[in-house]
Amino acid sequence: MKKLLDDPAEAVVDSLGGFGLAHADLVTVHLDPVHVTRASGPVPGKVGVVSGGGAGHEPLHAGFVGDGMLDAAVPGAVFTSPTPDQILPAIQASDSGAGVLTIVKNYTGDVLNFETAVELAQAEGLQVASVLVNDDVAVEDSLYTAGRRGVAGTVAVEKIAGAAAARGDSLDDVAAVAERVVRGVRSMGVALTACTVPHVGRPSFDLGEDEIEIGIGIHGEPGRHRIPMGPASDITRRLVDPVADDLALEPGERVLLLVNGMGGTPLSELYVVYGRARELLEERAVTVSRSLVGNYVTSLEMQGASVTVLRLDDELETLWDAPVHTAALHW
Amino acid sequence: MKKLLDDPAEAVVDSLGGFGLAHADLVTVHLDPVHVTRASGPVPGKVGVVSGGGAGHEPLHAGFVGDGMLDAAVPGAVFTSPTPDQILPAIQASDSGAGVLTIVKNYTGDVLNFETAVELAQAEGLQVASVLVNDDVAVEDSLYTAGRRGVAGTVAVEKIAGAAAARGDSLDDVAAVAERVVRGVRSMGVALTACTVPHVGRPSFDLGEDEIEIGIGIHGEPGRHRIPMGPASDITRRLVDPVADDLALEPGERVLLLVNGMGGTPLSELYVVYGRARELLEERAVTVSRSLVGNYVTSLEMQGASVTVLRLDDELETLWDAPVHTAALHW
Repeated sequence: MKKLLDDPAEAVVDSLGGFGLAHADLVTVHLDPVHVTRASGPVPGKVGVVSGGGAGHEPLHAGFVGDGMLDAAVPGAVFTSPTPDQILPAIQASDSGAGVLTIVKNYTGDVLNFETAVELAQAEGLQVASVLVNDDVAVEDSLYTAGRRGVAGTVAVEKIAGAAAARGDSLDDVAAVAERVVRGVRSMGVALTACTVPHVGRPSFDLGEDEIEIGIGIHGEPGRHRIPMGPASDITRRLVDPVADDLALEPGERVLLLVNGMGGTPLSELYVVYGRARELLEERAVTVSRSLVGNYVTSLEMQGASVTVLRLDDELETLWDAPVHTAALHW
Repeated sequence: MKKLLDDPAEAVVDSLGGFGLAHADLVTVHLDPVHVTRASGPVPGKVGVVSGGGAGHEPLHAGFVGDGMLDAAVPGAVFTSPTPDQILPAIQASDSGAGVLTIVKNYTGDVLNFETAVELAQAEGLQVASVLVNDDVAVEDSLYTAGRRGVAGTVAVEKIAGAAAARGDSLDDVAAVAERVVRGVRSMGVALTACTVPHVGRPSFDLGEDEIEIGIGIHGEPGRHRIPMGPASDITRRLVDPVADDLALEPGERVLLLVNGMGGTPLSELYVVYGRARELLEERAVTVSRSLVGNYVTSLEMQGASVTVLRLDDELETLWDAPVHTAALHW
């Protein structure tokens, strides 16, 4: 295993240390228990927005803490849910009296631990609502999941809920728009290589020299099938078709197209996939009116990509376009 | 070779196609000959800023075309210089009458081809100045270079020259501040793995299972030495010390610290390196007053990182902080 780390067991804390120093204007990194909050504290009158999950998917979630997106992020160990005692202070620190929305990817550990933390916060009198992200169309149940997994669609949920909170929406309204994004977003990914969890030290799965896995999960969970490596056009079609079919996209609709890198794939290849995915959507007479291409929800150094499509309307476009200032998204 | 490409020979054009569609608000991609210009055309009265070089280092350079940075970028084939007939129209398209600065990384092919294009532009009556970036302290001459190679310090040169042009500086003044950045910036990199040029189809060099190369070039050119894989702290010291020594940093100085990923290394590891590099600079009583961490000057899917340090002063900080709106940098 060759990784730019000191003690693999301290990978998350060491990385967060550097992250906190590099972005001290945006975030404060707390180590006991581990969580990340906005440097400027909660905004009076604004609904707090909190997310979290296992580390190893950077920049998710801590890279999205800042103006117009998250108020706090809670990273667990690599590919491991954060614990309720980490999540609770993140919720508390994000509450300015207007309540807090938690955004949770649908993995059993995350769901249980966020539920526990939310109950503890509610017992203290905080208003907390939750939304579950389950955008991965690849499989119905998975290694760590009952129901569909939450993957790169989470970026859209966090951006849009964050924008709704920033414009002053109530907790009910922020939760409602987040739910609307969840209903309208779907993703599917492909792995060209496996990744290695630092404290494990060996690849999470084996993939042949010329083999790829369609429908891979962001922790290397099995997808739909393994096929021989082929051209980007063919691979992209195997991602776009299930996503567009599952969304039941109709001619004339407009969408956000997010091509997300798994961490180890060059940006240049992501743009090839983006171009192909856009052609496929246009063949369906679907308009790509918003785009995002880059490494946003990764699986350590895995080579591969995912395609995410979000059905848009005027309100969602406005919220997507609203200003955001975080380490990983800024406009 | 597993890459998300169709025809490897068309990798650059296919990728630029997707890039142009994803960022149509910012850039126009021209295919005959290949170059990228600002979508909005040259800004009246503003000095144009143009850069280019072999592809495979994305987001460099096309990802830096937009407000406050480059007016045009000229990508060659992967790891291959663009030709004068590509560079000339990029210079012409960037001229609004105030002249054009070309920013060239110090590789023999880039230097010759930019020189030829600049002479052709000057023969047409355009005012063109050039600056050569040679920030890599690893070796004095290299495979494709007489003198030091130009690497991630290029981002600082392009950002600061772009900001000077945007505020209305004359060609002489933009060139002078770019030269000042070149004099004050140094870099050094490490490779954990090799990368594979698409049309070659096999790794550019061999690196053992537990071996890394200190001082690697961004095309896999040999560095200073190969050593066994070690902890991030040790590796970072082997990058920071030569950079800081070569700059002759004095206690009390302030710097920009850029930790750049080579493409295949997780962001989380780059933040570990950032944290260690910052500690090492602080041990020298040097203040890190500006930071950038991410994949900016890459070598396809190579795993590894580089450390870049730029000596700052009030003016350079102001120009670094000035607004920028490009695909890859936005604030």
